[in-house]
Amino acid sequence: MNRNAILILLALAPACGAADSPQAPQYTAEGQLLAPKDYREWIFLSSGLGMTYGPAAPADQSQPRFDNVFVKPASYRAFLDTGRWPDKTMFVLEIRNAAEKGSINNGGHYQTGVSRVEAAVKDETRFPQKWAYFSFNAEGKASAFPANSVCNTCHGKNAAVDNTFVQFYPTLLEVATRKGTLK
Amino acid sequence: MNRNAILILLALAPACGAADSPQAPQYTAEGQLLAPKDYREWIFLSSGLGMTYGPAAPADQSQPRFDNVFVKPASYRAFLDTGRWPDKTMFVLEIRNAAEKGSINNGGHYQTGVSRVEAAVKDETRFPQKWAYFSFNAEGKASAFPANSVCNTCHGKNAAVDNTFVQFYPTLLEVATRKGTLK
Repeated sequence: MNRNAILILLALAPACGAADSPQAPQYTAEGQLLAPKDYREWIFLSSGLGMTYGPAAPADQSQPRFDNVFVKPASYRAFLDTGRWPDKTMFVLEIRNAAEKGSINNGGHYQTGVSRVEAAVKDETRFPQKWAYFSFNAEGKASAFPANSVCNTCHGKNAAVDNTFVQFYPTLLEVATRKGTLK
Repeated sequence: MNRNAILILLALAPACGAADSPQAPQYTAEGQLLAPKDYREWIFLSSGLGMTYGPAAPADQSQPRFDNVFVKPASYRAFLDTGRWPDKTMFVLEIRNAAEKGSINNGGHYQTGVSRVEAAVKDETRFPQKWAYFSFNAEGKASAFPANSVCNTCHGKNAAVDNTFVQFYPTLLEVATRKGTLK
């Protein structure tokens, strides 16, 4: 292959994976995580409605919200191969409001506007506990919750595979069961 | 560029778009649609729980199901550009059972096993009405519902953009509004 062909190959490479950028999570100079702009093109893992955890007061089920979980495509493919999450894995939890009546829908719930966007990141060099948790502000930035936050504690204690709630992601639960990586 | 380099480029092309194969919908020799194996890697549009349409008896809300909607990445990108669906667009509707109690969840609903997989296809040369609707059998095959089916009639009458319920896909509703393609 000549030099021009190599240059063309290099130029094409980024276009192949627009929704699957190989970069690590991006941080500001102050160490805040930047919200990924393209997470709606990542791999969807599952959604829930009004999910309520642990001993805390039940969520107000009169106004439940949907939670959509997305993971970076490269991390997803690694999980399919190994049942484990590589370093730099990133999850986005998108919380959306729910409506009941609208258009032809007259029962049950469908999704409307975004209420909040959160993230979980595995970054072994940056975080002593390996995983950190974030809730983005209106500017799309977030500082990690402290290592003793409710998020860190609950994920560390209750998650099925390496701090992630694979027990709620049916397609990955099947993979982890087969690979023997469930806690 | 020499011939070898071209061959390498051609060989690389499929690997770039594993989750975004450019092929048209695939049919058996008898005209049955084949269920796409990789739809969980397509673009997620939204999900609902227990959604109930039209004058039919309300769904049994004591056992509501989730519906997850996915669309082919190439069709999604075309929609972002134009607010319209190109020919050969394909949607998958994955219907999953819902659970309430499990692991740390003690309120609300999360997704479990697949109940049914359905599809909508825009194929202008194959279907006089352009769009057709399918529910896959256990072998992953489906014949199109007749042109006067409830699916065809309701999508044709009530969908916000070209037979698709964009009113229930918040990210696309914003695009269609901006592009002026809402009915």
